[in-house]
Amino acid sequence: MNGKVWLVGAGPGDPDLLTRKAERLLAQADLVLYDALVDRRVLALAPRAHRFPVGKRGGRPSFEQRTIEALMIRAARAGRSVVRLKAGDPFVFGRGGEEALALQDAGIEVEVVPGISSALAGPAAAGIPVTHRGRASGLLVLTGHPEETWRSTLAALPPRSVTLVLMMAIGSREAIASHLVEHGWSPATPAAIVFSAWTPEQRVWTGPLVDLPRAPADNGPGLVVVGDVVDLARVLSKPEIVREPSIA
Amino acid sequence: MNGKVWLVGAGPGDPDLLTRKAERLLAQADLVLYDALVDRRVLALAPRAHRFPVGKRGGRPSFEQRTIEALMIRAARAGRSVVRLKAGDPFVFGRGGEEALALQDAGIEVEVVPGISSALAGPAAAGIPVTHRGRASGLLVLTGHPEETWRSTLAALPPRSVTLVLMMAIGSREAIASHLVEHGWSPATPAAIVFSAWTPEQRVWTGPLVDLPRAPADNGPGLVVVGDVVDLARVLSKPEIVREPSIA
Repeated sequence: MNGKVWLVGAGPGDPDLLTRKAERLLAQADLVLYDALVDRRVLALAPRAHRFPVGKRGGRPSFEQRTIEALMIRAARAGRSVVRLKAGDPFVFGRGGEEALALQDAGIEVEVVPGISSALAGPAAAGIPVTHRGRASGLLVLTGHPEETWRSTLAALPPRSVTLVLMMAIGSREAIASHLVEHGWSPATPAAIVFSAWTPEQRVWTGPLVDLPRAPADNGPGLVVVGDVVDLARVLSKPEIVREPSIA
Repeated sequence: MNGKVWLVGAGPGDPDLLTRKAERLLAQADLVLYDALVDRRVLALAPRAHRFPVGKRGGRPSFEQRTIEALMIRAARAGRSVVRLKAGDPFVFGRGGEEALALQDAGIEVEVVPGISSALAGPAAAGIPVTHRGRASGLLVLTGHPEETWRSTLAALPPRSVTLVLMMAIGSREAIASHLVEHGWSPATPAAIVFSAWTPEQRVWTGPLVDLPRAPADNGPGLVVVGDVVDLARVLSKPEIVREPSIA
């Protein structure tokens, strides 16, 4: 009899932010295939599983998407319970849709278990609510790649109409900042970078949009937040989480 | 000695999607102040707490925001552990920022515990990934109110550039659909409404954007999703979650 694959969100890092369902599935899994950004403390919750990394890190090549899918299909056909563990949420820049389709095509039962996405919880780790009355009543989430997407969308967006959350955008921060200023955003718009949110390595930089290019870039994975809500980080950041309110 | 207030996200409904931290805090809380949309199954995880509803439902007036804040402050000053339980995530249309500021102003220790937001997990419940390669590389989250915000933002946005997630927008679905079509969105753009996501009452409607005004509106709270990713609901929705793929 075939096994099953669960596409599980591991959340942003802190194992306390894992869902109860993910915790239970990890405890019972035979095989856990995990991405590079999944926190080690989360993996420790799957002691009986064979844990296998399939993400890229530090320049090493990652597995081809097709190889990952083939691994899942083979294990499920051998009757195993497979957890495909993804940082954040599987359906938010996680390729979860692609993997679910591949599994369905192969006749494998698949179930998606949402996780807490860094797109929303990353800013929160720095004391930034993505919406706040009088400051932002919506949010736009984009990635640094492909550049065409953020260029056309950000050029059209009314300045400061919504909070911007830009994932995997550290390398594009200079281009994004110039682009926004060119399209009517004030250089003084509050901006932040949250590095390694909800991990012991968390660092936060805040400053005006115009200074974004000068923010440090070597603090691990990070997300960029732009908008008036960023000002709230000053009052709402908690010292025990945000070790350094500014590292510029 | 003062107590403490935790602003806790209850997630979208299913208690399995609660975080481990929220589960622990609920088990230990003295007082739980909860919103109307918080699932009863989640409340059941706080058996020793005094559980007190502060949200509006069925036309009854809700508590004033100031009254809720005063209740939290008074309980914390009496040394109690208070969980302020909000549907979804406290910092995503949850007024969590406002409440955190009020508590800080009163000198009360406050901590935010992110939850799974319906903005991302609501579409997932219907088999819709908010991002998917070749279909959407970003998402915009807005609410039906205030109307000015969605009008100006949606008028500017390049058609189909990102997935739209519109919360508390059932009453505005006709106005939103017309507005999008007027601004260049194809009437055939795939659209969905997910009612009561991740609860036993979940219902899903899907159809072209132009039919959105004719979708049912009396299925409880719901969110509107517009974009090419909605097509994936047909293949990725799971019968055990999505009881009726279309109720139009």
